[in-house]
Amino acid sequence: MITQYYTPTKVIFGSGAEMHAGSELKARKAQKVLVHYGSGSAVRSGLLKKVTDQLDKEGIAYVQLGGVKPNPRLSLVYEGIELAKKEKVDWILAVGGGSVIDSAKAIAYGVYNPGDVWDFYSNKRVPEGALPIGVILTLSATGSEMSDSSVISNEDGGLKRGYNSDYSRPTFALLNPELTYSVSPYQTSCGTADIMMHTIERFFHAGRGLELTDNLAMALIRTVMENGKKALENPEDYDARANLMWASSLSHNGLMQTGNDQRGDWSCHQMEHELSGMFDVAHGAGLAAIWGSWARHVYKTNPERFALFGEGVFGIKRTADPEKDALDTISMMEDYFRSINMPVNLKELGIDPTDDQIEELTEKATFFGKRTLGSFMTLQREDMKAIYLAARN
Amino acid sequence: MITQYYTPTKVIFGSGAEMHAGSELKARKAQKVLVHYGSGSAVRSGLLKKVTDQLDKEGIAYVQLGGVKPNPRLSLVYEGIELAKKEKVDWILAVGGGSVIDSAKAIAYGVYNPGDVWDFYSNKRVPEGALPIGVILTLSATGSEMSDSSVISNEDGGLKRGYNSDYSRPTFALLNPELTYSVSPYQTSCGTADIMMHTIERFFHAGRGLELTDNLAMALIRTVMENGKKALENPEDYDARANLMWASSLSHNGLMQTGNDQRGDWSCHQMEHELSGMFDVAHGAGLAAIWGSWARHVYKTNPERFALFGEGVFGIKRTADPEKDALDTISMMEDYFRSINMPVNLKELGIDPTDDQIEELTEKATFFGKRTLGSFMTLQREDMKAIYLAARN
Repeated sequence: MITQYYTPTKVIFGSGAEMHAGSELKARKAQKVLVHYGSGSAVRSGLLKKVTDQLDKEGIAYVQLGGVKPNPRLSLVYEGIELAKKEKVDWILAVGGGSVIDSAKAIAYGVYNPGDVWDFYSNKRVPEGALPIGVILTLSATGSEMSDSSVISNEDGGLKRGYNSDYSRPTFALLNPELTYSVSPYQTSCGTADIMMHTIERFFHAGRGLELTDNLAMALIRTVMENGKKALENPEDYDARANLMWASSLSHNGLMQTGNDQRGDWSCHQMEHELSGMFDVAHGAGLAAIWGSWARHVYKTNPERFALFGEGVFGIKRTADPEKDALDTISMMEDYFRSINMPVNLKELGIDPTDDQIEELTEKATFFGKRTLGSFMTLQREDMKAIYLAARN
Repeated sequence: MITQYYTPTKVIFGSGAEMHAGSELKARKAQKVLVHYGSGSAVRSGLLKKVTDQLDKEGIAYVQLGGVKPNPRLSLVYEGIELAKKEKVDWILAVGGGSVIDSAKAIAYGVYNPGDVWDFYSNKRVPEGALPIGVILTLSATGSEMSDSSVISNEDGGLKRGYNSDYSRPTFALLNPELTYSVSPYQTSCGTADIMMHTIERFFHAGRGLELTDNLAMALIRTVMENGKKALENPEDYDARANLMWASSLSHNGLMQTGNDQRGDWSCHQMEHELSGMFDVAHGAGLAAIWGSWARHVYKTNPERFALFGEGVFGIKRTADPEKDALDTISMMEDYFRSINMPVNLKELGIDPTDDQIEELTEKATFFGKRTLGSFMTLQREDMKAIYLAARN
């Protein structure tokens, strides 16, 4: 089978990386930049001023749009598109984490293409391009800084939908681990879980995997687990933050699936999207809360794969009984999630969906009867419902 | 410190990847392509015809230039530049291994920039661009298919010199592991050694390394060692060839140094360049032949680093004596090289330089007194000579 690896994003990594924004934009002849950001912390920390000072110095015009929230909203995307068109913006600079970058990607599609940008996220049309995007990353989690993906929440119907295309891979990404020192313990844990899950979703597939990719994947997960803990112990541990930051990019830029027959399973991501679409929970926490139930539902399909994962990630000694090894592996993963204060079920996630809400989550996860999920094991409607129920109980 | 990761090359990987040449060139509006290749094997195997058939089908004009030899010669580069200019070539398609790709890169510089292309390789000037390059890879070794580097041999003086710039990163690379089934056992071993050494050179540096990069590096080396052996046992083992091929790209595209303070040591590469410049030995074999002598000369600078490498790659149990662990690690690496029939000294490499030749090698390695080598330990003239002598004895 043919796979592609395409990561054109120029990464500048290290202390002070954010100070390259002006020169990178200048080198690419940016005329007018939409500086997109989230909460007031980018303002309060002085980061935004560092950015606009660079643009002033390089003589590059700009407009600003803040207010991006976690699970970025379509309404703000519309606002950004309107603003960018009015102001004839030709570049977007996303200053923030995955939500800001994803919002920037949606605006970039919306400005470049006529019609309603939600069409792309609801799979009605495909875009023909996007405005170029630069990133200053302030949260290590989604990997959106190098990935082809973005996820937007439509308040109308509580739907959360992703769209992937190479047009949305940022042109450059400025990665300074110090900018994540102020990330809260909870968000650090959510980020750690999210980074791990981007590789885990790719690791569990039904096809033939490339051993090199498997080994890189397990090395990345081990490193993330260790450094997630270190960052919780000491939020200003440069090395821990640096490992998480670079892992966030590598976990989701395609490296961890190259040479594999399939791009991965992704059931947990899809089922989590519906959870955070309805309950507005943190994505990383939602993933951790559902993974164990997914794993116990599917592991018998290929217990060897779970056992290999347990050996490579947790160092378990494999026995003659791969099903036992698989269950041990699943328990150890849940133990790790608990050790960084991540939930391993919906109650710990802080939600308690009613039976009707479980039906609604399931219905939405099937795209209203239009799809199955997964590749490690194909999930039908009843599988999804069973997993949601298991996660609730 | 700031590091960059920039790998814009679009990789298409898997069985049949070479059949994407026509469409990739067409999508990029190539008008006239120089198809550059090495020996007659590309003709005899039918690969070249597969390529020109695609170009014919897409209506893309082309000229051909074969005859690239290992340690690619400047004289053929000049010929290629002249031909490309005369024929108004706007794209180069390299069909072969590292020598063909490096020759293509030199031609790409020479066509784009006025003056003598050797100026770039002898550090007299820097280029301002290069023709775009596509690659169909037939040998897993140098990583030139994604790297920014190329190495050319100037017959006039027996000099072998490299030049690095992002201009020479191929636009696309088509990687079909099956195209390497016919690679000889000796070349398979040389390729394995070369791939390992691209990551080893980066692993040994004097700065602070990123743990993630260290762990990915050691995972890659372990995987290459295992699959190099498998490919020798069964040359048509798709998985073994696939692992070697993708490892060759990842080992030299910059991934294995991202986040590290320094880009690596590279002493062995520089000292080997002089060996193959004078004696025309295979690059991978030359690296294996000199590494142990380099390692024993420098390990006391930081034996912990060698011990970490031994633990991660060979699974050695570390003792209270890191110098002992380092020496064990060096021996185990030499044992591995021997196990794939690679030399661990100059005699086994098949050369026996005279004292005068050792002086000449040393003089050339210092760029005639103009440089030191290495970062793990800075090598002065007398260090280089001691290493050449140790490798001879």
